[in-house]
Amino acid sequence: MNIMVNNVEKPKPQDVPIIALLTDFGIQDSYVGVMKAVIWSICPTAQILDLTHHIPPQNVKRAAYVLMTALDYLPPQTIVVVVVDPGVGSTRRPVAVKLRHCTLIAPDNGVLSYVTHQHPVQKIVQLQQYILQDVSNTFHGRDIFSPAAAHLARGVSFDELGPPVERLEQLPMPSLQIHADYIEGEVIDIDRFGNVITSIGRLTWNTDDLLVLEPRFLPPPVQKMRIQPERCKVMIGEHTFNLSVTYSGVSIGQPLALINSAGQLEVAVNNGNAAATFGFAVGDAVILKLNES
Amino acid sequence: MNIMVNNVEKPKPQDVPIIALLTDFGIQDSYVGVMKAVIWSICPTAQILDLTHHIPPQNVKRAAYVLMTALDYLPPQTIVVVVVDPGVGSTRRPVAVKLRHCTLIAPDNGVLSYVTHQHPVQKIVQLQQYILQDVSNTFHGRDIFSPAAAHLARGVSFDELGPPVERLEQLPMPSLQIHADYIEGEVIDIDRFGNVITSIGRLTWNTDDLLVLEPRFLPPPVQKMRIQPERCKVMIGEHTFNLSVTYSGVSIGQPLALINSAGQLEVAVNNGNAAATFGFAVGDAVILKLNES
Amino acid sequence: MNIMVNNVEKPKPQDVPIIALLTDFGIQDSYVGVMKAVIWSICPTAQILDLTHHIPPQNVKRAAYVLMTALDYLPPQTIVVVVVDPGVGSTRRPVAVKLRHCTLIAPDNGVLSYVTHQHPVQKIVQLQQYILQDVSNTFHGRDIFSPAAAHLARGVSFDELGPPVERLEQLPMPSLQIHADYIEGEVIDIDRFGNVITSIGRLTWNTDDLLVLEPRFLPPPVQKMRIQPERCKVMIGEHTFNLSVTYSGVSIGQPLALINSAGQLEVAVNNGNAAATFGFAVGDAVILKLNES
Repeated sequence: MNIMVNNVEKPKPQDVPIIALLTDFGIQDSYVGVMKAVIWSICPTAQILDLTHHIPPQNVKRAAYVLMTALDYLPPQTIVVVVVDPGVGSTRRPVAVKLRHCTLIAPDNGVLSYVTHQHPVQKIVQLQQYILQDVSNTFHGRDIFSPAAAHLARGVSFDELGPPVERLEQLPMPSLQIHADYIEGEVIDIDRFGNVITSIGRLTWNTDDLLVLEPRFLPPPVQKMRIQPERCKVMIGEHTFNLSVTYSGVSIGQPLALINSAGQLEVAVNNGNAAATFGFAVGDAVILKLNES
Repeated sequence: MNIMVNNVEKPKPQDVPIIALLTDFGIQDSYVGVMKAVIWSICPTAQILDLTHHIPPQNVKRAAYVLMTALDYLPPQTIVVVVVDPGVGSTRRPVAVKLRHCTLIAPDNGVLSYVTHQHPVQKIVQLQQYILQDVSNTFHGRDIFSPAAAHLARGVSFDELGPPVERLEQLPMPSLQIHADYIEGEVIDIDRFGNVITSIGRLTWNTDDLLVLEPRFLPPPVQKMRIQPERCKVMIGEHTFNLSVTYSGVSIGQPLALINSAGQLEVAVNNGNAAATFGFAVGDAVILKLNES
Repeated sequence: MNIMVNNVEKPKPQDVPIIALLTDFGIQDSYVGVMKAVIWSICPTAQILDLTHHIPPQNVKRAAYVLMTALDYLPPQTIVVVVVDPGVGSTRRPVAVKLRHCTLIAPDNGVLSYVTHQHPVQKIVQLQQYILQDVSNTFHGRDIFSPAAAHLARGVSFDELGPPVERLEQLPMPSLQIHADYIEGEVIDIDRFGNVITSIGRLTWNTDDLLVLEPRFLPPPVQKMRIQPERCKVMIGEHTFNLSVTYSGVSIGQPLALINSAGQLEVAVNNGNAAATFGFAVGDAVILKLNES
């Protein structure tokens, strides 16, 4: 993404440290507030960006996906703190991971898999320094992840956070298989609107009658693939959907398939809720047929 | 509203750009976080104020009402981004609207109707410049509205955003009719507490025994009207309520009518939930009888 | 808590004013947004920290507990605005309370009881100055509490807010009784994960085989007490739980008791929901047996 427009000089977001939070803590308790309290105790000038705190409890896969949808849009040098941590207090390591334009701070439980599959990892360290003196057994978001992020934000160097780590735990990638006449994937997310988001992407409209697929979840090297949208059908279970360019390509209340804002193939109902209408759920198999007519 | 008190010099909020967000995106996905990421990529010093992200999906009317309740309290020069956008990707225009003390950025679908009915519009432009280079068909909150707001916040002038627009789409105003002995309106909102908020307002307590009504939802010129509260009864369906000055004017658990913090006539239950107790819903007819005794 | 680590000089959070909010307003309406609008109208540089807005309506006790869990972690000189205010518009006083490291602003309805039981009160004033000119009968969060907090944040002195107040309203403390062989308490909170939090605390692991109890909810002077964790059993109703150091001390799906991040005795299910599994609720009696074997 290039956010520079019209030759206006780009401001320097790194002058204002930005810390993004992605957790399963919800917002009914004080957990997220306490993380912010720790961050601002250490780096009171940081802007804190809530990605979401509504990851279902311990759902590492959903956090991995949501992080992927946001990463490209974060300001340069954003520090992202991900706390979906079913193993808190066990031996899983707390880590910091340096990518080209962001730093990620998280438990090493696979939650960073989708983004590190797509963005080269420059360095990894285990968090040992710049954490609170008393570390609880149940809330490392407060005691380890937030203080490490805040110290980074105020200028501590990445390498000072702790000793290097060789490699990260990996989640299996979402299901995705390319065949001659069809692509097979799965439902990986249902959003607030009931839009049904699949593992088939990243898809880009080249022109209104040509799609380009760069598969996100296959091992490298990634092969680009051209797709003719007017010959496509999307199938989930018994149901078949036509590809449309926009929601309003069909009447209100009608179903469609389209490319969503993260570049993933999605099934939706215009101004309606596709997941509720059709009973689709995360994990359902999805077929994109390429040569229908 | 005048927030200056006791001759203390008023600070200048415009030195810190403030961007308010009002959407139907919810907070379970990364949509709102990504909007903030785009804003802070362009204007990292902006304060971002969440009005609410829990407008029911595509409910333009509720967004219009919620915006109305907040507008008078926003700091001078706040930029308000409203994204409740059932027509995203269609031909509806993205616009910026300059009022005296705020700038509004939204799809031109009527969502600004209630505030522009009450506050003179100085200028309107269609958003064409200062947007992201790649504009998706499904997420203009990220690609158009947020970057335009952020560029305004960092000093781009209003007129540079795009070409002028003559007039805005309008929603019908909520139902409101003034008769000799009664005023007829409708329920326009149910809040988190189950308070039942009506289209009858703006009402102000002049003294504890005199109310003044300046009808918000009638065409100008607005005629002020004096109301004697002790002679009033409020009726919704079969139920009748007496006007009270405060919630605690009745015992805990008892119903009442009162003037809410936005100046609208409201039916409530002291420390209870009126909407659930009586089964009232948005759209229900409301009668304010003026000469009962 | 000491957040200084490794001899790095501590930054001065008080250079950036921080205002924390704790309310029962929810986030579906504009109430919280309007409070922030008023705050930033007066003090646009303040960082605003949302503790939670999801206190159940009028539940003063839950707000008192949530405030207690956060207080120790707030940056020095944080101004905490608590608006859970069933008596809004009645004669209950709006107050500001100066503690050693924070200032609290709230209705005087007992919501500050738990923290003022544990932290000495330096001063109390009734809020009369530095409030909005027009004070509604229904929304003092906007008209009184937010402006007072914002004026404090921009440098108004505590004493200027209004006349001194002698003492605060008190809630009864949660049930807690120390016996020779057992401690009796009650469930005081259920968190987002279904963890069942009790009034028995503050407990600290001295070593992995020695717990120290400093009872939070008993009248002073507080007597420290040593507890041998391997001899403990926790009983709620028919159910008995063993003490564990971490969630992962038992298999996934298994129940346990442990010391939570606020130092309170908690019953949980590893990666599960204890409250739903066992049907526990706030107010249930809890027994910690000390000499089982």
